[in-house]
Amino acid sequence: MCNESVIGYIETRRSIRRFTDEQVTRETIEALIDAARWAPSGLNNQPWRFITVESREVLDKLASFTKYSRILKSATAAIAVFIDTSRIYHREKDIQSIGAAIENILLAAHSYGLGACWLGEILNRHEEVENALEAPLDLELMAVIALGYPLDDEPPVAKNRYPLDEVIVKHL
Amino acid sequence: MCNESVIGYIETRRSIRRFTDEQVTRETIEALIDAARWAPSGLNNQPWRFITVESREVLDKLASFTKYSRILKSATAAIAVFIDTSRIYHREKDIQSIGAAIENILLAAHSYGLGACWLGEILNRHEEVENALEAPLDLELMAVIALGYPLDDEPPVAKNRYPLDEVIVKHL
Repeated sequence: MCNESVIGYIETRRSIRRFTDEQVTRETIEALIDAARWAPSGLNNQPWRFITVESREVLDKLASFTKYSRILKSATAAIAVFIDTSRIYHREKDIQSIGAAIENILLAAHSYGLGACWLGEILNRHEEVENALEAPLDLELMAVIALGYPLDDEPPVAKNRYPLDEVIVKHL
Repeated sequence: MCNESVIGYIETRRSIRRFTDEQVTRETIEALIDAARWAPSGLNNQPWRFITVESREVLDKLASFTKYSRILKSATAAIAVFIDTSRIYHREKDIQSIGAAIENILLAAHSYGLGACWLGEILNRHEEVENALEAPLDLELMAVIALGYPLDDEPPVAKNRYPLDEVIVKHL
């Protein structure tokens, strides 16, 4: 069993912001959402909903709603992640579950050799995104994930994280 | 490369609520938190903090704060997950990142043959948990994850999820 690779993929996952021209296929995007939906949620309420984007025109439109526009202009696909407000059990617990579903997307993307970048600053203009995507009224934008095949023209930036003993407050 | 196993672990992960007497070691718990900290966060602010619990007395104390007490009474370890409110960049985006970190814990646990259960209902009594653990004042409880080695005495319940075409609203 490939035990090591789960930890390996968790540790080697990086935010990728520059992509090649290669189109991410519908089948691949659906495989990522397939992974997302296996995340846990309170009372198994599964509050996540998705709009997938492959249209260059729509990607460029979304790019205009964030200061990180270059990432979406470079991406060849995106997944807009929503919370279905009609299914909320406990808002903040459900938002955590949305994050778990997003992490599944990011890890699945990485395992397929895709690059991905989780965009959150775009939430500042979430209504414009929701309107541009004609999202149903119950859906509230939680994130946009830019996708594509990584442009490997620069050495990967080393990831930095606080060491374990800074994030573990105490052992009881 | 073990590409398949990431998706495999994502799909086969289940909430485990009954555990054997086998103690989860400190080393194993730290390996789970090591996985958690590689999650992405806005501006890489890493708002997660953890208190690890191996003490039977403290586990039973935490059990008294949730209606799902049997899970913690059975567990041989737990991780209390907090958000550091002094490091918040954007509360709901940070809460999503906490969820991503939790998913890393759950996937890492599964890959190590551990069972885990993400407890959210305990948030209803978060102040009592924070007091019992003597958490620093800036830390706000986000979840408690019960841990142990799965008691395999009953066939696993099939996981059910809404099909893909229910969670994908549209393709653009």
